Amino acid sequence: MDYYSGYITKLIEELSGLPGIGTRTAARLAFHILDMPEEQVKALADAIVEAKGNVKYCKECCTLTDQEVCPICSSKQRDHKTIMVVETTKDMAAYEKVGEYQGVYHVLHGAINPMAGIGQNDIKLKELFQRLKDDVDEVIIATNSSVEGEATAMYISKVVKPLGIKVTRIASGVPVGGDLENIDNVTLLRALQGRVIV
Amino acid sequence: MDYYSGYITKLIEELSGLPGIGTRTAARLAFHILDMPEEQVKALADAIVEAKGNVKYCKECCTLTDQEVCPICSSKQRDHKTIMVVETTKDMAAYEKVGEYQGVYHVLHGAINPMAGIGQNDIKLKELFQRLKDDVDEVIIATNSSVEGEATAMYISKVVKPLGIKVTRIASGVPVGGDLENIDNVTLLRALQGRVIV
Repeated sequence: MDYYSGYITKLIEELSGLPGIGTRTAARLAFHILDMPEEQVKALADAIVEAKGNVKYCKECCTLTDQEVCPICSSKQRDHKTIMVVETTKDMAAYEKVGEYQGVYHVLHGAINPMAGIGQNDIKLKELFQRLKDDVDEVIIATNSSVEGEATAMYISKVVKPLGIKVTRIASGVPVGGDLENIDNVTLLRALQGRVIV
Repeated sequence: MDYYSGYITKLIEELSGLPGIGTRTAARLAFHILDMPEEQVKALADAIVEAKGNVKYCKECCTLTDQEVCPICSSKQRDHKTIMVVETTKDMAAYEKVGEYQGVYHVLHGAINPMAGIGQNDIKLKELFQRLKDDVDEVIIATNSSVEGEATAMYISKVVKPLGIKVTRIASGVPVGGDLENIDNVTLLRALQGRVIV
């Protein structure tokens, strides 16, 4: 038997399809939504539909944007000869929050992961290599420091280096404020290998 | 500066208004929604709007339903002389899942909580007392065993008892399968006070 109205059951079902949201959380959210003022509910539903309808990939860097070319790619103040390659739009936002980087980005929307069936054609690599035909000085690889991120970094450097473009990788090591005794072995080893003269 | 498209920022904002969802989770959900197929996104938005638009209070028991009178209140197989008072529609569903209870319900949509400014007129008590004018044998109070739930139970019993209607409270004690050493003092005391002859 359905303990709730069909509309509530349907809403719980749809919400529990989202990542990290189980049936219990979905039920809590559903009853909260039913309790919200009408206009707030409409605002939520509209935000979902409008984001999906208006957000697309930037023609240049493939980030998620509502314009043909994103504000960073169309800015004349940015250094278009330096491209930082990241996995997601969120990673790009993380570096933008820091505010120091003056170059442009390229968003891959994933990383090479043969175990999950994601090959080099399933992420925005073609679009990256296309951009290298323009005048580019440096490609900074800022993929995650995971197995997939490293594999992707390796692949990119293998393709880009022969073109005579400088390829760099963001440093891997002990995070600032990190306590040495709590840091994993691989990171400690990386920090040692990547040591710099002071 | 906005690191994301305005549409994404708006979606993250709306999602983080939901209970238990912070900005980070909201961002994760937003990017997942942008990644979902168009029709699935529409289904989610529709489920939200339709649940809000079609779900209302049952005229009898005030549960959330899409009908004038909910299936339980309109069922001839239920004992309409026994009313179980619960705080939320979810609590009602919990007892319906057990399947043993044959009476009907009354959903208060909250509990008396003076600290939060919720008085007896802010929950569906008027509607409960109205129902008692019909032929009712027993009112079973199944509000939560919290301070607010107990206060609400006390208030209901004070109003209903003088009407000559039997008022009962669901038992409070050690949960089945509960380990005595892990149970709080108040529950242990309640279990002792509520002991029954075997």
